[in-house]
Order: sequence, then C-alpha cells, then structure tokens
Amino acid sequence: MFVIGELINGMYSNIALALKDHNKKIVQTCALEQIASGADALDICCGPASQNPLIDMPWLVETVQEVTDKPLCLDSSNPKVIQEGLKAAKNKTIINSTTADAEKLEILIPLAKKYKSKLIGITISAQGIPQNKDQRLELAATILTQAGEQGFPIKDLYLDPIVMPINVAQNQIQDILAALLEFKLISQPSPKTIIGLSNISQGSKVRSLINRAFLTMAVASGLDSAILDPKDKELMDALITAELVLNKNIYCDSYLEAYRKK
Amino acid sequence: MFVIGELINGMYSNIALALKDHNKKIVQTCALEQIASGADALDICCGPASQNPLIDMPWLVETVQEVTDKPLCLDSSNPKVIQEGLKAAKNKTIINSTTADAEKLEILIPLAKKYKSKLIGITISAQGIPQNKDQRLELAATILTQAGEQGFPIKDLYLDPIVMPINVAQNQIQDILAALLEFKLISQPSPKTIIGLSNISQGSKVRSLINRAFLTMAVASGLDSAILDPKDKELMDALITAELVLNKNIYCDSYLEAYRKK
Repeated sequence: MFVIGELINGMYSNIALALKDHNKKIVQTCALEQIASGADALDICCGPASQNPLIDMPWLVETVQEVTDKPLCLDSSNPKVIQEGLKAAKNKTIINSTTADAEKLEILIPLAKKYKSKLIGITISAQGIPQNKDQRLELAATILTQAGEQGFPIKDLYLDPIVMPINVAQNQIQDILAALLEFKLISQPSPKTIIGLSNISQGSKVRSLINRAFLTMAVASGLDSAILDPKDKELMDALITAELVLNKNIYCDSYLEAYRKK
Repeated sequence: MFVIGELINGMYSNIALALKDHNKKIVQTCALEQIASGADALDICCGPASQNPLIDMPWLVETVQEVTDKPLCLDSSNPKVIQEGLKAAKNKTIINSTTADAEKLEILIPLAKKYKSKLIGITISAQGIPQNKDQRLELAATILTQAGEQGFPIKDLYLDPIVMPINVAQNQIQDILAALLEFKLISQPSPKTIIGLSNISQGSKVRSLINRAFLTMAVASGLDSAILDPKDKELMDALITAELVLNKNIYCDSYLEAYRKK
C-alpha cells in the first residue's frame, strides 16, 4: 500500500497558520512526523485558508522538499495551482486530481506527461457525483480512454471512485468497494486505485473505527494507495494487519515492528 | 451477524475447573457475560479437560439453560457427546460439527433432523485439511449433496471453510475468504457460512488485531455467523462497524450503542 499523508492541508489550523506567515518549521515538522509514521508520500493542499494558492503551493513544495525527497501529491482543483507546484517540484509528483471532464483531462494529462508526474483521476464530472457503481465505471472508462489516447502510461494513473461520507450515502459504500475491484479489470495493464479515506467518516462521531473498517475492506478489494492520516496509529496497525492477512507481507510475531522498520 | 460466544470450553482454565467440581456458578457467569457482550448463541465444548464428556456435555447444557434460552452450539468431534447434549437441550441447538466424511454425515444429519437442530459442516475430511479453495468447495459440495439427499433444510446448514492459523498457512487466508463467497453460490437456497474466528491468530502474538482484520474482511465476504470471543470489545466494535459500512444497520452517530441496545 502506497500511503499518502493527508496532513499538509490548509484546512487544518496548524497549516493555515503556517501559510499566513510562511512558517517553514510547522510544515516541515508535519512532513517529518507523517514520514516517521509510515507515509510514502505527502499530499500538499493550500486549502481554503490560502489567499494566494499560486504562491502558497510552490512555497509548500519547496518547504517540504528541504526536509524530504518523498513524492509530493499536489492537491488542487485549479490546474494553474497544480502547475505552479509542478514547476517548483524536484521530488517525484502525483497530480491530485483530474475529473472526467474534457476540459480538465485536456489540461492535466499533458501537464502530467510534461512533468513526468503520476495522475489521480477521480470519477466525478460536471454532472456531479456518481450515484452507483456503473456511473463510477463509466467515468473511469472516460478517464482511461483519454489517458490512453494521449499516450499517458496507464500504470501511472490512479483511479479514485470518490468515497462518500457514510452518514450521507451509506448505501453507496459497497458500490465503492466493488468499483475498486472492477477498475482494475477495465484495462490491461491495469490502472492503480486510490481513495481519500477520511471522507468515509466526514461528520461521523466514531471516525477512526469507521476509517479502519473501510480501509481493511478496501485493501481486500485490491486498493493500491490511500490518502490518510498516518499519525493515526490504530489505523496504520489495521492497514499493516490487513496486508498481512492478505499475504502481502510475510508473517512474523513482530510483523508490526518489522513493517515499520522497513 | 449471528455471534456464537466461544468461552464455555474446557480448554479455558475457568471452565476446566468448573467441570472438575461441576461448579454451576462459573459456567453461568461465563454464559451471562457473553450474552451481555452481544452473543446470540453459546458454544458448549467439554474440551480436553473433561474426563467424561458424555456426562459433562449434558451437565453444561442444563447448567447454561438455567440462566438463558439462547441457542446452544454443541461442540464435539464425538457424535455420541453431541447426542447427549441434544437430549438435554430445551433451547434451540446447533451441532458443531460434521466433517465431509460419509460416516459422520450418516450419523449427524439424521441427528440434526431428529432434534430439529441446525448443523455446521466443516470442510475437512479424513484426507486432512484442504490446501486451497477448490478443495474446500469440493468438500462443501459433498456436505451439501448429502444434506439435500437426506432432506435436511439447506438454510439450516452452516458451512465452515476451516480457518487456518496465519502463522502456519498465511497463503491460504485469501482462499478462505474467497470460499466464503463461493459457498453461497453453490446451492439455491444458499447455505449459511460460519467461521471459528480465533483459529486465525492461534499462536500469534497480536491476536485481537489479526482477528479484527480477518473478521472485517469475512463480513465483506458475506459471512453469516462467527464463533468468537464476544468479550473482546474491540473485536465487537470492529464487527458492528463492518456491518455498518456494508449498510446492514442504519447509520447514526451512536451506532455502537444503538446496536448493543437492540
């Protein structure tokens, strides 16, 4: 599982504060803590706190790069903000994200190719959020087809079925799990799959427990990557154990420590 | 999920002690604690501590029946011990278990019919433990065919794919999960599925975490029933949350409390 830490995001008060004064220390501490907890990459999102994301995104990228060479997941719905991040990046990058809309695909696929970036394709469109598995598959096929036609390497494409909060769309969760399995089957080579995990428990009271249950099931559905809070130790324990149960890491009594050391 | 409490078993020291002096209090406390923790039924097993299971099994049944009318899961590899339990039972019963061997099926299916008991069919035979999913399906088909031919109601048959400890058969766990899904497809009406959960972590150091991950995945594979430790609160929380994620109980912020109250 490729774990992308979610905590460098202007929607969190510490990062909002850091953006205000361009305080490097806060951002770098957040980066290093996530990596120490098991993050393989770091999401970078200016969020609603940013007055000027075209400046803040490259500043965040440069700030984080000073302390780590882990891949950076450039998170914005504005392609121009992503482009500023890509320009500043020396580390490997993942674009987060394109939708299935033509105007997004026409900008972001060439951008991903130009900067040799991976790309997250989220199965939504201007028509809104899909209501079932088939609509997710249809949007996934649109993204895959466009990526294929533009010569983007499919192994570098991460499809996101868009996780809905359980308190508003409980009946869609099984469809989302099924979509994860089926995304892998609609092209050869297979695209990768990814989720923004915390969405599942947005607005719920018992967040970590719901996150753990859903992540465990998603791992059983072949999930390749998740954007999550790596500092939630119980969540990381559940993830490591889910992969153990599925024989992705060899069993030993101290498998949790062994995984964390590697 | 139909939860069968596993704790009335002579392999545990408190029950071994109770069997020695026929101490009702110990057994009844164990029964009531499991029910208070969410058990829908109770496994009853004399275990290796019993000098005379033909006497101890009906004693355990009568002792438990004094404090609850929950179904009893009569657990022995010896059909004569099960028969003594059935004779003593006023509560509903589940026979735990028959193998796929003809000599077991020929005794235990008629016994289940005679006493209107449910029946667990475990996919092992005198040839030993199956090594993969196909061998499990073959043994499941043998049990199903015999049950059908003898006019046993298939909806009362629980198929157990036999859970192996992860520290000895890690590569079989995915096959076991797949078998759970496929057992439901080999007959119409479908048989039910069941696992003896704790086997997965037998001999492991981090038991509850492994139990939780495997149970969560098994629930996603349509599992109907599990024999487990209901006093493991984290395990029960994981179970309730897994069913919530799969839309089997309606979401509310206090879903854990709501489930426990019902």
